[in-house]
Amino acid sequence: MKVSRRSQVPPFAVMEVLAAANARRAAGHDVLSLCAGEPSTGASDVVRERAADLLRTADLGYTEARGVPALRAQIADHYRRWYDVEVDPGRIAVTTGSSGGFVLTFLAAFDVGDRVALARPGYPAYKNILAALGCEVVELDCGPETRYQPTVPQLMEAYYGGGLDGLIVASPANPTGTMIPPAELEALTAWCFEHDVRLVSDEIYHGIAYGDDVAQATAASSTDRGAVVVNSFSKYWAMTGWRLGWLVLPDDLVAPVDALAGNVALSPPALAQHAGIAAFSAEAYRAAADNVARYATSRAALLDRLDELGWRPVAPADGAFYLYGNIASTGLDAVTYCARLLAEADVAVTPGTDFDGERGRDWVRLSFAAAPDVVTRAVDRIVAWQRTL
Amino acid sequence: MKVSRRSQVPPFAVMEVLAAANARRAAGHDVLSLCAGEPSTGASDVVRERAADLLRTADLGYTEARGVPALRAQIADHYRRWYDVEVDPGRIAVTTGSSGGFVLTFLAAFDVGDRVALARPGYPAYKNILAALGCEVVELDCGPETRYQPTVPQLMEAYYGGGLDGLIVASPANPTGTMIPPAELEALTAWCFEHDVRLVSDEIYHGIAYGDDVAQATAASSTDRGAVVVNSFSKYWAMTGWRLGWLVLPDDLVAPVDALAGNVALSPPALAQHAGIAAFSAEAYRAAADNVARYATSRAALLDRLDELGWRPVAPADGAFYLYGNIASTGLDAVTYCARLLAEADVAVTPGTDFDGERGRDWVRLSFAAAPDVVTRAVDRIVAWQRTL
Repeated sequence: MKVSRRSQVPPFAVMEVLAAANARRAAGHDVLSLCAGEPSTGASDVVRERAADLLRTADLGYTEARGVPALRAQIADHYRRWYDVEVDPGRIAVTTGSSGGFVLTFLAAFDVGDRVALARPGYPAYKNILAALGCEVVELDCGPETRYQPTVPQLMEAYYGGGLDGLIVASPANPTGTMIPPAELEALTAWCFEHDVRLVSDEIYHGIAYGDDVAQATAASSTDRGAVVVNSFSKYWAMTGWRLGWLVLPDDLVAPVDALAGNVALSPPALAQHAGIAAFSAEAYRAAADNVARYATSRAALLDRLDELGWRPVAPADGAFYLYGNIASTGLDAVTYCARLLAEADVAVTPGTDFDGERGRDWVRLSFAAAPDVVTRAVDRIVAWQRTL
Repeated sequence: MKVSRRSQVPPFAVMEVLAAANARRAAGHDVLSLCAGEPSTGASDVVRERAADLLRTADLGYTEARGVPALRAQIADHYRRWYDVEVDPGRIAVTTGSSGGFVLTFLAAFDVGDRVALARPGYPAYKNILAALGCEVVELDCGPETRYQPTVPQLMEAYYGGGLDGLIVASPANPTGTMIPPAELEALTAWCFEHDVRLVSDEIYHGIAYGDDVAQATAASSTDRGAVVVNSFSKYWAMTGWRLGWLVLPDDLVAPVDALAGNVALSPPALAQHAGIAAFSAEAYRAAADNVARYATSRAALLDRLDELGWRPVAPADGAFYLYGNIASTGLDAVTYCARLLAEADVAVTPGTDFDGERGRDWVRLSFAAAPDVVTRAVDRIVAWQRTL
């Protein structure tokens, strides 16, 4: 029987690594897994305790499609607290993870055939979702000279080369961890507004940044210029499996997202929404900050050993919890590198081919969201293993 | 800025009823709400307790995109237990509610421009999701002579009138509650297979059926003929806000759904998945059966008073928890009927226009999932109010 053309999504190479890692672990090997993009801690105690209370007292039925008002009010407070930006809770839509937010945003903003630009390397689900929804993906080849982030000249080239309807940016980005400086985000936002191009800003790694200058500009202050913010409880608050995220929407997309959400999702998970209110407590922010401090420790240890690792270049890991490095000097392509590193040294990292179909074979992504001692031991093993090549 | 054409989804009339009902309740009125399609009980104690335990012990990170193996194994057992059908757990994909299952199925099976048939009246999200994904919806006008269900002659007409790529059936159906007899489901399945038309069987109300002959055929025994089953924990197990459902897939859709799920959803909610395993315990089945017995009590009371209600005809409420009745004799259109019934008698029901764009103005849907005394008091009020018209 017919299977859709749009379901012919390239499989993630990381899934093969994960399966092989699980098989080796099941066979008794001490596998160090640095391939998944998720914190190892899980949600803070205050969120878990709130959820346990709700299991006794709440009915946990469908909620409003755009999320419960009390959570939307807390999210608005968060923008005041972190960015000094006023966001009307009426512009906020709670979603089923950022994944649910991307699907709703792309459906609301783009039609079949619309052209949407994004950085290569980048998070592969952007282009796979867009393609499944019938949009045309315009990959912008981004390198070290722009911290792997798109630029206005690239947008102009895409715009005059075939039209442009949307741009997705991510800061900090996956897999590179690089950030877009506030002035550059403003330039991209202004250009998009002027050219009637919808800006979608993925801010799911906000709060996870390093160095002296960690000021993070949010596109939530640019909804009056059509910008959409996608955010999530998964990374900063370590609530990956809870499937909770949110959108900050411009006026013109509020009603469309609401109508679509009622049809494609009904409502985000009720328990996660009610318990998620506790993520904005002082305790939960403190637990999240402790996690970030741990990532910073791991990151510093990693960067100290770059010479030993010999990955050159690496993307500047401004934020998030990834080190994206070039392993071409090992003489191995990334898929082989990852398979052999796992088989011969029991360390799992992700081949760059998942993020970059052009140059990814020379790159790997290492996630340092694991505990610092795991990261340190993994580097020991990688360095020793690379010497055997 | 541009908003997509595909986001121009008609708003649900029931949302206005719900908002008005909430406003009246907030103003101190004793509103009886029979408009929502959800059980009033919530999840059984055994599921809630399992979830509370997991909040203390589990990490609740991302799971496999197609769901945790232990839950898929339990779902396979359920098919053995209820239907005496063997289902390979490898064919089962856990989804974020049946909503998530529909999105994945439609993406995997249908391309932009494909034609998909469904019954009118019917659940409005089918056609709204299909339209958002660029498919062409072929509405089949279904009336009392076929229990509001589609027939092979209607499929042939659609097929020869412009081609057909898919058919969605629902038994028991929303809003009518009517069921497709096993022989008729077999006829539809065989016709679809013969004509290369993908059959999608919505079985989310399975287990909620009345009368002597409640045998429910499942399309899970027809995956070898390309059929897809969509099911959910929301209705029988009363777990609406947990957002948990599943698919039973034919071989050709297993890999496409898996690849799509990893991109559009990452994974279904982790806590719901792990706790959902307890839904297949004897205790949870017993709690669900108790709920169904309660719906049966309410249904019997309703049917006893059909003459007083004067709704003629009503769809035969074989299953689910809805009474879909024609209110044309009141002289009011359904939207006015519902608005006035709420404003003048504090009873909320759903206008048929949400389910049927052609004839829905003469129909309303009453949900009897509420407690039996609520249903009885609501009928008292409706009868008294109708006398004032």
